Amino acid sequence: MSAPSASRFSMNQWTTKRWSVAEAVDGCVRHGVEAIGLWRQDVAAQGLDETVKLVREAGLRVSSLCRGGFLTSGSPGSIDDNRRAIDEAAALEAACLVMVVGGLPGVEPGEPLGSGGRAVDRDLAGARERVAEALAVLAPYAAERGVRLALEALHPMYCADRAVLSTLGQALDLAEPYPAGQVGVVVDTFHVWWDPQVFEQIARAGDRIASYQVCDFLHPLPADVLMGRGVMGDGVIDFTPLTEAVTAAGYTGDIEVEIFNTEVWAADPDEVLSRVKARFGELIAR
Amino acid sequence: MSAPSASRFSMNQWTTKRWSVAEAVDGCVRHGVEAIGLWRQDVAAQGLDETVKLVREAGLRVSSLCRGGFLTSGSPGSIDDNRRAIDEAAALEAACLVMVVGGLPGVEPGEPLGSGGRAVDRDLAGARERVAEALAVLAPYAAERGVRLALEALHPMYCADRAVLSTLGQALDLAEPYPAGQVGVVVDTFHVWWDPQVFEQIARAGDRIASYQVCDFLHPLPADVLMGRGVMGDGVIDFTPLTEAVTAAGYTGDIEVEIFNTEVWAADPDEVLSRVKARFGELIAR
Repeated sequence: MSAPSASRFSMNQWTTKRWSVAEAVDGCVRHGVEAIGLWRQDVAAQGLDETVKLVREAGLRVSSLCRGGFLTSGSPGSIDDNRRAIDEAAALEAACLVMVVGGLPGVEPGEPLGSGGRAVDRDLAGARERVAEALAVLAPYAAERGVRLALEALHPMYCADRAVLSTLGQALDLAEPYPAGQVGVVVDTFHVWWDPQVFEQIARAGDRIASYQVCDFLHPLPADVLMGRGVMGDGVIDFTPLTEAVTAAGYTGDIEVEIFNTEVWAADPDEVLSRVKARFGELIAR
Repeated sequence: MSAPSASRFSMNQWTTKRWSVAEAVDGCVRHGVEAIGLWRQDVAAQGLDETVKLVREAGLRVSSLCRGGFLTSGSPGSIDDNRRAIDEAAALEAACLVMVVGGLPGVEPGEPLGSGGRAVDRDLAGARERVAEALAVLAPYAAERGVRLALEALHPMYCADRAVLSTLGQALDLAEPYPAGQVGVVVDTFHVWWDPQVFEQIARAGDRIASYQVCDFLHPLPADVLMGRGVMGDGVIDFTPLTEAVTAAGYTGDIEVEIFNTEVWAADPDEVLSRVKARFGELIAR
């Protein structure tokens, strides 16, 4: 099977987290990168209209907008915020809006249980039902605006605080009632590499794959497990079978490198971009 | 459905890690605990014959011996060591020998990749195949000695360094070629609570459930994720549906409380045993 072309490399903006949108767009142009994954808070800081102008003038594809989601509380505010995220994805002509569905209500990343007087709701099945209910509201809204939602299963170690959506199979079950072009899924190597069913579920996903994100799983994990994402080759993941499976499933879109890592974030962004492009060439686009 | 009887409480010895086998046996007797889960290294320190004598005189059931496994290297030494573990489980008349199957070859818990000059073998599928091959050697040996092997799926965050067996479904697939009395599975709340298929797989497990271990999943996880096991009620797990599912599947054996936690280990073991017994009464044996 032929490996993906290097031109499908997309830089997720948080890989070079210190860069503003304008700096990241400029960095992509200087490094010959054709696609970028953007984050809402950085787009807001740059201004949505200005961001649209910057990426268009640079000729960049927007491979994803990160992120909508956080649907488990069932609050109307969450739905409203997701509608805004969908509008932004439409303006940016992003290939998809990544949805991180949220954890158990009352459980906040990095904060002890019960802090701020919050009650913890341990009803995991209930939280998962609320995700399906919110999706039923948001999917038609997104479809009307030509935005594809991309459900992202997160590693099970984030189930309590970030995403009750824990496997690719579960994401596909959730997406099933909708057309593939309306609700897709993210395959992120960090989140799925361990899953005994991953190859079967990637094949099942087929044209539901809306985004393929790559980074390594570091060992040992750092104290803040969110920062366990490493440059490809620095961790324990064998990328070849996963990339071959995603290719065999028919995915031809951009491949985003998304790395949360305190050392990478502290390094010079130009050096980081050079390094991840080189590793992409060695391990993904061989 | 009736909740389990409080008499099914078993203290896994590492919940009171500072206690020797003799001290732990004495603690169980003083606290009215009828069953204990033992660890091989502590049994060796006490002496196997002496341990057998202590548990018999105390009238304790040995709910499990922890642990065999570490089969992914494919080394003959690993097979030999597992045969010894089986012999020890037979002498102790343990209800099962818990098998933690091992991670990727060359990946050591807590140590950076490549330390000690070790090469990392990222072939996860290959490692999983070697587990199945080793099981084919060990299962008949265990059966001849009347020992039940109990395959333990570990949380996916331990896939690289401790167990390439990551879900209950995968454990059941691995056990399937063998009679249920010969190769069973462990259901450990910490490892499986997040799994969208857990209830379906517990029902599927039926009489393959060889051990039910309970402890909570702490949030946030501590810097060493191995220490993320908390006293029931201190974390994010809803124990009732899991215990009901295990009961509905027909499990009538002991229920082990197994907690790895630096604060629990620093506390007075008598206080810890009182506390976990009380929580067991509130959250498991209601």
